Amino acid sequence: MASKPAAPDNAAYEQLAERHGATLERAIEAVATRESWSPFSDSPSSKIHGAEKPAAGRAAFERLLGTRYGIDQPGIAEWIGNEVSPYTREALGITYPRSEPAALIAAGSAALRSWRKVDFETRAMVCLEIAQRLYDRNFEMAHGIMHVAGQSYVQAFAGSGPNALDRGIEALAYAVKAMRDVTPNAVWRRKFGPDDVALDKRYTIMPRGLALVICCASFPTWNAHPALFANLATGNPAIMKPHPIAILPVAMTVAVAREVLEDFGFDPNVVTLATDTVEEPVAEQFIADPAVQIIDFTGSARYGSHLESTITRKALFTETSGVNSVVMHSVADLSQSARAIARSTALFSAQMCTSPQTVFVPRGGIAAGTSQASPRDVAEALASEIDALVGNPAAAASVMGAVQAELSMDVVARVREELAGRDDVEIVREASPYAHPDYPDARTLSPLVAIVPKEAEALYADEQFGPILFVVPTDDGDDAVAQATRLAKENGTIATYLYSTDEDFIARSTDAYEEAGANLSINLHGTMWINFAAAYSDYHVTGLNPAGNASLADLAFAASRFRIVQRRRPE
Amino acid sequence: MASKPAAPDNAAYEQLAERHGATLERAIEAVATRESWSPFSDSPSSKIHGAEKPAAGRAAFERLLGTRYGIDQPGIAEWIGNEVSPYTREALGITYPRSEPAALIAAGSAALRSWRKVDFETRAMVCLEIAQRLYDRNFEMAHGIMHVAGQSYVQAFAGSGPNALDRGIEALAYAVKAMRDVTPNAVWRRKFGPDDVALDKRYTIMPRGLALVICCASFPTWNAHPALFANLATGNPAIMKPHPIAILPVAMTVAVAREVLEDFGFDPNVVTLATDTVEEPVAEQFIADPAVQIIDFTGSARYGSHLESTITRKALFTETSGVNSVVMHSVADLSQSARAIARSTALFSAQMCTSPQTVFVPRGGIAAGTSQASPRDVAEALASEIDALVGNPAAAASVMGAVQAELSMDVVARVREELAGRDDVEIVREASPYAHPDYPDARTLSPLVAIVPKEAEALYADEQFGPILFVVPTDDGDDAVAQATRLAKENGTIATYLYSTDEDFIARSTDAYEEAGANLSINLHGTMWINFAAAYSDYHVTGLNPAGNASLADLAFAASRFRIVQRRRPE
Repeated sequence: MASKPAAPDNAAYEQLAERHGATLERAIEAVATRESWSPFSDSPSSKIHGAEKPAAGRAAFERLLGTRYGIDQPGIAEWIGNEVSPYTREALGITYPRSEPAALIAAGSAALRSWRKVDFETRAMVCLEIAQRLYDRNFEMAHGIMHVAGQSYVQAFAGSGPNALDRGIEALAYAVKAMRDVTPNAVWRRKFGPDDVALDKRYTIMPRGLALVICCASFPTWNAHPALFANLATGNPAIMKPHPIAILPVAMTVAVAREVLEDFGFDPNVVTLATDTVEEPVAEQFIADPAVQIIDFTGSARYGSHLESTITRKALFTETSGVNSVVMHSVADLSQSARAIARSTALFSAQMCTSPQTVFVPRGGIAAGTSQASPRDVAEALASEIDALVGNPAAAASVMGAVQAELSMDVVARVREELAGRDDVEIVREASPYAHPDYPDARTLSPLVAIVPKEAEALYADEQFGPILFVVPTDDGDDAVAQATRLAKENGTIATYLYSTDEDFIARSTDAYEEAGANLSINLHGTMWINFAAAYSDYHVTGLNPAGNASLADLAFAASRFRIVQRRRPE
Repeated sequence: MASKPAAPDNAAYEQLAERHGATLERAIEAVATRESWSPFSDSPSSKIHGAEKPAAGRAAFERLLGTRYGIDQPGIAEWIGNEVSPYTREALGITYPRSEPAALIAAGSAALRSWRKVDFETRAMVCLEIAQRLYDRNFEMAHGIMHVAGQSYVQAFAGSGPNALDRGIEALAYAVKAMRDVTPNAVWRRKFGPDDVALDKRYTIMPRGLALVICCASFPTWNAHPALFANLATGNPAIMKPHPIAILPVAMTVAVAREVLEDFGFDPNVVTLATDTVEEPVAEQFIADPAVQIIDFTGSARYGSHLESTITRKALFTETSGVNSVVMHSVADLSQSARAIARSTALFSAQMCTSPQTVFVPRGGIAAGTSQASPRDVAEALASEIDALVGNPAAAASVMGAVQAELSMDVVARVREELAGRDDVEIVREASPYAHPDYPDARTLSPLVAIVPKEAEALYADEQFGPILFVVPTDDGDDAVAQATRLAKENGTIATYLYSTDEDFIARSTDAYEEAGANLSINLHGTMWINFAAAYSDYHVTGLNPAGNASLADLAFAASRFRIVQRRRPE
């Protein structure tokens, strides 16, 4: 596992390794040290990229509108697409091929036979070339992400561009590490009775089969890239199934991947696109096929749980969702902490799997610098930070972006209605639209803030997929941690947050978070989003609670995507 | 993953690391190079062990007969045990605690809370101490294995002793490698807007939960040790469930493990014994409990397949069985190859998961040195080698041992009956008992050899768990490979064998074996059993066909047994 093996002897490898070899080694180093690193820049600034690229990217996106997205893959039955921009509320009019599942499976199975023989170091280089070309087209991707998912321009550029590519390269690094751990051959000598036995042994890395990658609607690339690269590197052709309301980013990924594969003489059907509609979902047809041996899923807890409880005999990697909690025990500066939490909930209108939703605050109040703050004080500080953001539409636009689906508006409306029906809750801030400076029709919503009692679990204990912050008074700080970690364990969580100035309290809280499988951020504030997860450094999802069974990224994410077949004979 | 981290700061580690630290590092080196290595000797010779130990081991075993096996674990409801020696046909009279599953789960869950906090390097040292103490008691273990499983004394000593311990240490090496790959902490620095962010990050290795290890009857330790050590190292307490007809070797393992745990101040309930009876199996009660998160199973394809198709949301590692084929394409010396195959089938009366069963031979005959050999010539050569073995009772006893279960006698009788009913088969050699020199009542059976047509798949294509060799004429050599690899793919295989003097034929056959996930031994003969699988070097089971979903051992066997939980805060 330590050293890079001899370079494969083929032209594609030589050409690609010169461009990407150092990046791969650096990524492998980064996942070991978990330091901050990226081969990309996640700022869209024209100081970095020049003035041309941003405009060209936007133009490229606009040229796509109303056209057929060119992916020439097998078995195309029709062209479909119903994407609607959350910014303009207009249909994008882009259509994508819908291929018959049987045709994609047949093409993928044929591609597997040649792809598995491409040595894995070359396959890894192909992944890095795909990543580089996606980065080169990232302004186009950013506009695509904006108009299918609703992310702000800045977030789309970073979070669905370099940050997502980094997660992909991180997964790739683990796949390569795991495969380098397998020596390709050995000579084995030992005495057996009178015989000196010497055997020549060969160990062949084999893919498991076809891989289905089911992508989510709000962050289509962030989980697609890791699954794609981990599968491709280990020899498994990938069938990419986008969410029907957010096809474009995945289609672009597939198109780029196929272009790279073709450019270097490989079968483009190593990567194909499986589109479907909300009305006629296609995933189960692939899952039922014995050729499909690996399934990556990112999306709702409901469907994820269905997959987790029904899929057998196949490798399944899920990231679903949970309820992310904040425990406020004591703070140095209430507005500083409240700003960090409020901005993080406001980010992409709380449509992130790491968005904080439920804030536990001791009923008797918390130490806040030299004074005390009650749960209501905390709620008001949160509301006031959101108000400040909404009052600055340019800032609001870059933080909150748009709400992707009407469904999220309905979620907030439903919660609001439930709150209205109770006399033990207090609305501290109403959810309200903000005026987007560029897109007057944008579907926007700033977070609702409500104080709800501990008993109202039906409200705060499940993920409410929309901009809502619940403040929940607890008996004390320890009770707050008990509530937060119980929620994590029972309902799943992807990110938890703790604010305390008391080291003893922090120390005694750690166990419960670990046992709940809850990744914890302590006392974060400042410009960095508290829910920012850095590839190569922050493990994303623990697999220890219902928010998913796999982590981005660790050896377990890669090591079971391939198998080893050996042969041996006298030397 | 490359370097050993700083030694943990505790007394148990210091004491154990001095004894075992170098062994662990050497094992990690061996799984990387896959060269021949073992810290143990697998010969029972008194030249190595002295005259005392063999006698003392036998006496220790004999003292156990008719007694309660001392394991003082929670929730003991009764003492049970119905083991019968295949050598003496007498009951051993040893009884073992049967604890209520709920009590074992509660005790294991409590043990998990402390065990998970023992750093993994120390946990690994505990495993190595268990291995060493089992090795020290291996003469006792050998007699135990003989009298529950039926293995010969020599095989019991080696195959269920050092060879099994080596497989355990191999799995341990992978577990340690996978955990060393996770840095325990990092400092992450990057600029975010105006802020220089510096985060201190901690990454905690967490076990998944309790582990159930379901052991098989014929080789109780060979798969138990890898699962036990991989689980213990990664922090998961193990509940060891022996097959009800072969409890003793697992009970001894549990007793030694608990003794080591106690000696070093750890909770002995990190390892417990879950006995049951054939009439009232208990495995499903453990599997149904949410506390149990990992299941290792070795045993029948039928039950393995049931587990594979029903267990969800838990990690499942299976090794079941398949039909192991030989393709005879051309040989330098027929009797040499026939001897290798015949002895390998005779070994432990074909009760090994690697025993060859079905020999495909081109109908038109094969080149055998300077002459030709027909399928009948091959069958007769096989029969003659078996006859030679049977004619030498001392040799037969050390090779064939005894047949563990009457069931295997029934299998052979049933097959014999089916053969009698067909006019397209030819019995070349009848299965027959041999006279065991030491145990006149031993249940023995030497292999039946029959020529059956390709069409008679119902006979040769499924594993017949008893001493039977089918010779199946095929169209030609390529057809032989096609048949062998199709069987492997459809019905599973753990080991396949190919004999050919034609390098082109070997080369063009390789793909099909790889695609069937079939580990292949080519042209093996001599003193080493062709079905010998060396820990640290030979991967056992590929996971690519129905003979099991996991391999002994690779990173995938270890990497998903633990999870990582992180926390981060400003530096």
